[in-house]
Amino acid sequence: MTSSYGTTLRLTLFGESHGPAVGCVLDAPPPGLPVDLDAAARHMARRAPGQAGPWSTARREADLPEILSGLFEGRTTGTPLAAIVRNADTRSSDYAALLRAPRPGHGDLTGRIRYAGANDPRGGGHFSARVTAALAFAGALALQWLAARGIVVRARVAEIAGVADPSPVDPLGLFPDLSAKPLAAISDEAAAAMSAAIAAARADGDSVGGVVEVRAAGLPAGLGAPFFDRVETRLGAMLLSLPAVRGIEFGDGFACARRRGSGNNDRPTPSPDGSPARIRRATNRAGGAEGGITTGLPVVARLAFKPTPSIAREQTTVDPETNAEVPLRVPGRHDPCVVPRAVPLVESAAAFALLDLLLASRAASLP
Amino acid sequence: MTSSYGTTLRLTLFGESHGPAVGCVLDAPPPGLPVDLDAAARHMARRAPGQAGPWSTARREADLPEILSGLFEGRTTGTPLAAIVRNADTRSSDYAALLRAPRPGHGDLTGRIRYAGANDPRGGGHFSARVTAALAFAGALALQWLAARGIVVRARVAEIAGVADPSPVDPLGLFPDLSAKPLAAISDEAAAAMSAAIAAARADGDSVGGVVEVRAAGLPAGLGAPFFDRVETRLGAMLLSLPAVRGIEFGDGFACARRRGSGNNDRPTPSPDGSPARIRRATNRAGGAEGGITTGLPVVARLAFKPTPSIAREQTTVDPETNAEVPLRVPGRHDPCVVPRAVPLVESAAAFALLDLLLASRAASLP
Amino acid sequence: MTSSYGTTLRLTLFGESHGPAVGCVLDAPPPGLPVDLDAAARHMARRAPGQAGPWSTARREADLPEILSGLFEGRTTGTPLAAIVRNADTRSSDYAALLRAPRPGHGDLTGRIRYAGANDPRGGGHFSARVTAALAFAGALALQWLAARGIVVRARVAEIAGVADPSPVDPLGLFPDLSAKPLAAISDEAAAAMSAAIAAARADGDSVGGVVEVRAAGLPAGLGAPFFDRVETRLGAMLLSLPAVRGIEFGDGFACARRRGSGNNDRPTPSPDGSPARIRRATNRAGGAEGGITTGLPVVARLAFKPTPSIAREQTTVDPETNAEVPLRVPGRHDPCVVPRAVPLVESAAAFALLDLLLASRAASLP
Amino acid sequence: MTSSYGTTLRLTLFGESHGPAVGCVLDAPPPGLPVDLDAAARHMARRAPGQAGPWSTARREADLPEILSGLFEGRTTGTPLAAIVRNADTRSSDYAALLRAPRPGHGDLTGRIRYAGANDPRGGGHFSARVTAALAFAGALALQWLAARGIVVRARVAEIAGVADPSPVDPLGLFPDLSAKPLAAISDEAAAAMSAAIAAARADGDSVGGVVEVRAAGLPAGLGAPFFDRVETRLGAMLLSLPAVRGIEFGDGFACARRRGSGNNDRPTPSPDGSPARIRRATNRAGGAEGGITTGLPVVARLAFKPTPSIAREQTTVDPETNAEVPLRVPGRHDPCVVPRAVPLVESAAAFALLDLLLASRAASLP
Repeated sequence: MTSSYGTTLRLTLFGESHGPAVGCVLDAPPPGLPVDLDAAARHMARRAPGQAGPWSTARREADLPEILSGLFEGRTTGTPLAAIVRNADTRSSDYAALLRAPRPGHGDLTGRIRYAGANDPRGGGHFSARVTAALAFAGALALQWLAARGIVVRARVAEIAGVADPSPVDPLGLFPDLSAKPLAAISDEAAAAMSAAIAAARADGDSVGGVVEVRAAGLPAGLGAPFFDRVETRLGAMLLSLPAVRGIEFGDGFACARRRGSGNNDRPTPSPDGSPARIRRATNRAGGAEGGITTGLPVVARLAFKPTPSIAREQTTVDPETNAEVPLRVPGRHDPCVVPRAVPLVESAAAFALLDLLLASRAASLP
Repeated sequence: MTSSYGTTLRLTLFGESHGPAVGCVLDAPPPGLPVDLDAAARHMARRAPGQAGPWSTARREADLPEILSGLFEGRTTGTPLAAIVRNADTRSSDYAALLRAPRPGHGDLTGRIRYAGANDPRGGGHFSARVTAALAFAGALALQWLAARGIVVRARVAEIAGVADPSPVDPLGLFPDLSAKPLAAISDEAAAAMSAAIAAARADGDSVGGVVEVRAAGLPAGLGAPFFDRVETRLGAMLLSLPAVRGIEFGDGFACARRRGSGNNDRPTPSPDGSPARIRRATNRAGGAEGGITTGLPVVARLAFKPTPSIAREQTTVDPETNAEVPLRVPGRHDPCVVPRAVPLVESAAAFALLDLLLASRAASLP
Repeated sequence: MTSSYGTTLRLTLFGESHGPAVGCVLDAPPPGLPVDLDAAARHMARRAPGQAGPWSTARREADLPEILSGLFEGRTTGTPLAAIVRNADTRSSDYAALLRAPRPGHGDLTGRIRYAGANDPRGGGHFSARVTAALAFAGALALQWLAARGIVVRARVAEIAGVADPSPVDPLGLFPDLSAKPLAAISDEAAAAMSAAIAAARADGDSVGGVVEVRAAGLPAGLGAPFFDRVETRLGAMLLSLPAVRGIEFGDGFACARRRGSGNNDRPTPSPDGSPARIRRATNRAGGAEGGITTGLPVVARLAFKPTPSIAREQTTVDPETNAEVPLRVPGRHDPCVVPRAVPLVESAAAFALLDLLLASRAASLP
Repeated sequence: MTSSYGTTLRLTLFGESHGPAVGCVLDAPPPGLPVDLDAAARHMARRAPGQAGPWSTARREADLPEILSGLFEGRTTGTPLAAIVRNADTRSSDYAALLRAPRPGHGDLTGRIRYAGANDPRGGGHFSARVTAALAFAGALALQWLAARGIVVRARVAEIAGVADPSPVDPLGLFPDLSAKPLAAISDEAAAAMSAAIAAARADGDSVGGVVEVRAAGLPAGLGAPFFDRVETRLGAMLLSLPAVRGIEFGDGFACARRRGSGNNDRPTPSPDGSPARIRRATNRAGGAEGGITTGLPVVARLAFKPTPSIAREQTTVDPETNAEVPLRVPGRHDPCVVPRAVPLVESAAAFALLDLLLASRAASLP
């Protein structure tokens, strides 16, 4: 039972919300890869709280990572790369009240049982989304290294509060770079409607969920394996680990279940250069994988995020010590929707998983 | 890049459709666990082809496993348990035609690239659903061992060809044992409509997909971890590895994305015996996990299965050697819907993943 | 707690001495590697019992492996390669006596505790050296694949019963191919003296131990990592797993502990072609590794094998049921020295570990 | 290729000698274990440089670890525990000279090849023994947690520069606590002779090696597995990863190779309480393991340490850029013998490996 992911390139996350720092170790990236820390900081800022928009609280994180090891003269050394983000405010507030009123939808109750009451309860401890700052950083590096090899990973808000972005997306390609948008929908109208829905929920002391789509273009065909190393398995194991995710689908996903085979198969089309590795498909309903192995078309996944469980309105919970039902008002301010800030995190997570897959694939052949 | 799953109890699948055998190694179950081979054979028979129903072909598998190791006097030895299922018909038919006409939606093209043309193309080789006979066996043992500890894992057909089973299911409980039904829907009317839809697709030389729900009741609260060992992650990594699966959702899944938090949180309710580990929830929208850790309520997942890609009607594909589009009629007979036979496989897969999680959890504490 | 080894290429051993078969799964070799089964059988025959010489018993194994998967038209498919060796004689003899008189120096007592009495006691079960037939096979393939890349792994008997082979070995090279010799010492005189010592021990109803040296030449410089993936760590984890091994040393090993640094350092000498990767050393006291990473010189290890614990003369043991001391005469015939037959096994084990290291190293860089 | 060890409790080391910090992540200890940071600091001080004695240089490390995560109110949280030790002096000195004169016996040359010239060359980078400060800390916790369960791990200097400590050690027990001694030999006379030998080597601008013995008492019988999870394998994989180690032997090790079986087997003796798990042995030549599984007697290993490769006297090396032989005087001051400071490190390493084995063993049974 670890907080680690990856077979060839291993990522370990550590830290608690109110502890000294959150951080990660990458063990270990290939040597000699350039690291652009400014670009990484910009990527992390998209995930950080305190953004302009109704979905974000006023809290501010100083999410600048400190590199502890594995970087020398701006390039990876090939030995473990460790980085931390200090927690600015780690005052040991009175958390006794938290223990007596576990928040529904969080790991307060389950964590108490799992860790026999020893885990750090302040701010959710290791369960906190704060820990994903370290994942965002690790993924920022993966995004850079993949991009240098022509592999581009982008996520977008597909839906919030039932408001879907109707913009068409080329199934064989990518959507535009949305990283400059505060709410990364393709359609500005949809983004406005989503923002309004978030604002309405906030006004009600409530929260909303949504769907994020991630696409990775430029991957070579031939990555993956028929069973437990399917590209879907590896991506799924990473993406299902993100807080608030309740489901994942690849390509057309659940819609495939309602189709006939003749309308679901992707028809192969000739290779532009004649090489079998570049045989394309007329459609991409499969989301870039057949038999668990990349086709060379964009890998596509969609993730369901639940509405933020911490809501302003009063709820009822159970005090584990007295076993009595007690009223709960979740203290602090909380984003009424995690989806906008989840977009760069999904990019990070997917990029890391794909980088690990790419490295693992190299070990599948001998020179 | 392996065909192995699991951290504490490791499962390796091997075999090709037309090779000598498919099989598995469990490395290694706890010692002294009783094995009921008859019950395992009955479970495997539910997955085997040749059943009565429009979804199944006339092929017959003699799926009786031969135990090679790890069993002594009817109980596990605690050392690796290996078992094989011989392939009855391994005639080396002319497969050159297969190589020249890769089947859409299968691993024919991607496997050729991944394995540089060296993989066994006959019947899909290691990509074949035939390999899942070994997984069904491994899971049959897991089901037995879990059941002996009060943990019951059951799957059902929730939907085929857009025909959903409308039967209500107690969110805090299980549905009835459906293992005796040829098509494991709760509602016989729904089952009949699903069968009719399958028969209609077959008549059209086509195929249909569907949705399988799996529920595991009786798990203790406290299994899992906040990040990469979430119960959803571990189950997801297993279930997304099943052939034809295109998506997975936990609890209310994608529906949660359209809800508000006040309507999605599961309200805690007092523990029947006062112990915090038995605090329940009024609802189970989360599908048995909060913060990645089991709540003690049933763990619930739903899986989208695509329509069988092998269809009787003619398709177009690309010959990798000439890069020309060629017509394809998939040889042999193929199930027009994999969902009915997938039900016991999903039970097997989920049970194995949960058993591994249960064992791993034991290593998380010291006496 | 598994019977598996390897990170990139994973080997799982299974089987019991008196069960249906012993076997292995390689998960998974690179695709397209040729397999010479005849050469593998010849290699395995060197490990098999029933050889000419005082160290071997009259038992005969038909050690021809049956390939179950992963091989197609004489080459690896790239998916798991499973092979078994059937146990010729698996009569369920009366083993109750064995349980009441555990053999000193075997896993009889410790296995009983570890497996709560459920493990197969017949012939040692999974503890039996019989299981190493499967390891010998896996290693035979590794030896072939390494040899095709100019990497030659050879083992020799360095010492038996205190009789050391005085033959000089070029520290920068290899010794001759000894695979045709029944007792693989370089010096025939030493081999004769060793044989005599074995025969003398046998005549006394006793047994002797010895030392095996293994050398791997042709490895490129740069394999390994500073800590837990040192070449010594990876080789050590494999070789310390062989039955009867009590110690391992690399290069000059324990002798280094008695030297001064000035007499232990290997002085670098210029590269024959100017490339830094081919800088050599004047000596090879380090056994082919500095900082845990290969130098390009032969990797050298020496293994201490204890005398066979099963001896003909009467011993005293304790009946676990009565806790009384009881006399023991180990039934059956047993080799009075395992060292001669261990030579090909050490070659197999070392080759497998080095192949896995070679593959893992490929994943340490991006194209 | 990682800097990680462990299956159930995973340790990752990171850091470079002249980078910001060295550190470790334990992923993850059981929850609720008390941590005595003062005791850990005392343990680490035994490994730190700057001690009184001819074997140590004047450098001083401020080895006080900073806990970043995983500790709450003095106890483990059960989530990853990260700790760092800041490097006091990380001035980026001119290291160009180092690159042109790689030190024999270090990872300078092999690391350059392995990491394609990208690794941090300053002070050896991640190859530096400085990184073992983090391992010493991780092991200090393991030692505490084992001791609370009656498992005591102690190491001693058995030999330096050929001067062996002749003190008898009860094969079924432990030697006294030597942690207060600057040179942890049992015999003060031997310690004095060892010190003199070190001083003599230093006076000659040279260095010496030695042997460390580690014993772990109080382990229950039944830990381990027949093959790749033997207690020897797991301990070996950890201890062979320590810098400067060239060999390991268990129990009587290489001496067993020169014995007859009748003189090497450990005769079982009745259990003091009648339970089979406490059946003892009259001797402990096997070093606490039979068939790879603990007997309940002390686990004993001996490690060969080579003489410090950095010596004061001039050496010859090869400049990788010009391929010319060049003279080398290793800059800085270096311990003429690593053995005294290695003693607490060996204790740390062995304790960590045994703790991981103990935890893994719990996952081998179901309640």
